[in-house]
Amino acid sequence: MFEELMSEITEKMVLVDEMIGKIVPVEKEPRILYEASNHIIKAGGKRVRPFIVIESCEMCGGSESTVLPTAAAVELLHTFTLIHDDVMDRSATRRGVRTVHEVWGIPIAIAAGDCLFAKVYEAIVKHTRPGAVSSDRLLQVIDVLTSATIEICEGQALDLSYELQRSIGESECLTMIEKKTAALFEAAMRSGGIIGGASPSEIEKMGSFGFKSGTAFQIADDILGLTASEDTLGKPVGDDLREGKKTLIVVHALQKAKENQRKTILNVLGRMEASDEQVRNAIDALIDTGSIEYSRSRAEELISLAKRELDLFPDTRARRALLELADFFIARGF
Amino acid sequence: MFEELMSEITEKMVLVDEMIGKIVPVEKEPRILYEASNHIIKAGGKRVRPFIVIESCEMCGGSESTVLPTAAAVELLHTFTLIHDDVMDRSATRRGVRTVHEVWGIPIAIAAGDCLFAKVYEAIVKHTRPGAVSSDRLLQVIDVLTSATIEICEGQALDLSYELQRSIGESECLTMIEKKTAALFEAAMRSGGIIGGASPSEIEKMGSFGFKSGTAFQIADDILGLTASEDTLGKPVGDDLREGKKTLIVVHALQKAKENQRKTILNVLGRMEASDEQVRNAIDALIDTGSIEYSRSRAEELISLAKRELDLFPDTRARRALLELADFFIARGF
Repeated sequence: MFEELMSEITEKMVLVDEMIGKIVPVEKEPRILYEASNHIIKAGGKRVRPFIVIESCEMCGGSESTVLPTAAAVELLHTFTLIHDDVMDRSATRRGVRTVHEVWGIPIAIAAGDCLFAKVYEAIVKHTRPGAVSSDRLLQVIDVLTSATIEICEGQALDLSYELQRSIGESECLTMIEKKTAALFEAAMRSGGIIGGASPSEIEKMGSFGFKSGTAFQIADDILGLTASEDTLGKPVGDDLREGKKTLIVVHALQKAKENQRKTILNVLGRMEASDEQVRNAIDALIDTGSIEYSRSRAEELISLAKRELDLFPDTRARRALLELADFFIARGF
Repeated sequence: MFEELMSEITEKMVLVDEMIGKIVPVEKEPRILYEASNHIIKAGGKRVRPFIVIESCEMCGGSESTVLPTAAAVELLHTFTLIHDDVMDRSATRRGVRTVHEVWGIPIAIAAGDCLFAKVYEAIVKHTRPGAVSSDRLLQVIDVLTSATIEICEGQALDLSYELQRSIGESECLTMIEKKTAALFEAAMRSGGIIGGASPSEIEKMGSFGFKSGTAFQIADDILGLTASEDTLGKPVGDDLREGKKTLIVVHALQKAKENQRKTILNVLGRMEASDEQVRNAIDALIDTGSIEYSRSRAEELISLAKRELDLFPDTRARRALLELADFFIARGF
């Protein structure tokens, strides 16, 4: 069903990775820093966020070659947050490989993340073809990506403080998803629009598409974390539960669960030592409370709202790709 | 001797801190993130780097109010690196208070550093008075600060890898100082010059002044770490030795020391458990090898080279302040 989309994503991925290779060359000294910085990038990933940047730019009539450094910048920003998040969450595996701090230690993981974050700006300022984008628009892109990063930091801080709380409400859970994930999807759409020459009102609508579909993406991702295979995930099924991650599914379940279901879930939540069987029982409880189904329908609703934001844009290949991508976000696992 | 300079620094400090308060308000949610981000800023510091930015801008005829957000940005950048460095070096105290990770834990310290780094760009893009500086020049400032950050990350990675080596050469030691410290002093001078409307060749000279005086600043700082009081330092005397920091003093001493001096130094180097007496003996050995004296003369030489870079600038109050600041760098402790 998504074959054409997948081949388009793969096609752009090659270009994005080539650009990333120029911005963060692995052979540079000190080798330890640049190897660590490249580790999670080389480990995989579909480059969905750069794809969004490119398509969003093309939807507004901008060119792929002009937007490529910004697309790469968004992936670098995403990777920097992954590396630091893995330290904060003490995650051992990511994309099927050991996390950066597991291989090189926490200090190098912090430095590699910082380096990639700086490379976000280097990408935009030094790698955008001179004269191709006005300085005003480049500053706007920098503003958008910076704001998104601040949202991500705030989201991470919320996440860390929620870990200490037994339960949080649904709105707190959504705020966290919006800051940690949706903000960067919004920024990806906006950046592409800015480079593509979109008007302020077009940029608003594009941002809103990114924000809503990004929220749905994360909800769907959290469902996948419980229903997909370890091979697909690149990390053990149910690790989110063991790490105590307050997903929409868990938040909903803890509100709706009967006493025994609640116990089964809390047996696993935030307990890294929980057995595979305990995790399976907890997932069954999350199904029985209807929480997976509830989250799925929330994600579907968000995707249909997101798609409407693009109603007024002309029917181009790029617009079709973005609409299809939105559908793909929630179709992946289920 | 430096009374006038000190009162000028204090005067600018008030303005810089007011601007920082606007960029990183402590009352913002999530409180834990913004309190952690403000912790080291509120704990003290003379705001030397922002002072350099302001004076460098004024030396070129630019105005204080225009450059203030950039000056604040440079202090935020410095603070972000301090917070992350403290995690990497497992330092417990900074500016007389507990380090961020000691108070809030490593995850929040990482997030607070990331947040401050993002705020560097927010300061420049959102807080510079609209129209006061051309977009081209703002992008140049962003480029300069970004490159400095990459140097700092590289320097930190070198530092971490040198910790594992028994000894390093003097040139490796200087490269580390140049990346970890001098690069930001250079960037501070350049940023001020760019905002002040300096020509490319003026900016080069100003950068070179910052680079050379910044290198001297760090060498002098490392001397102070052995010769000043705990009160002045805000951390125990000789902590650098216990942490195994490869300062110019130590590198020189390990090359020149006789066997017994060498033993006395290595007894302390990288051993957090070393006693105060062992530290005192090691410092005596560093004096006896002439390494403190050698480092002092290297720093003095660098300062005199730095000052010459400003020869061709007109004799203004700002230029005199920068020249005096350079003298102050090496006069502080000795």
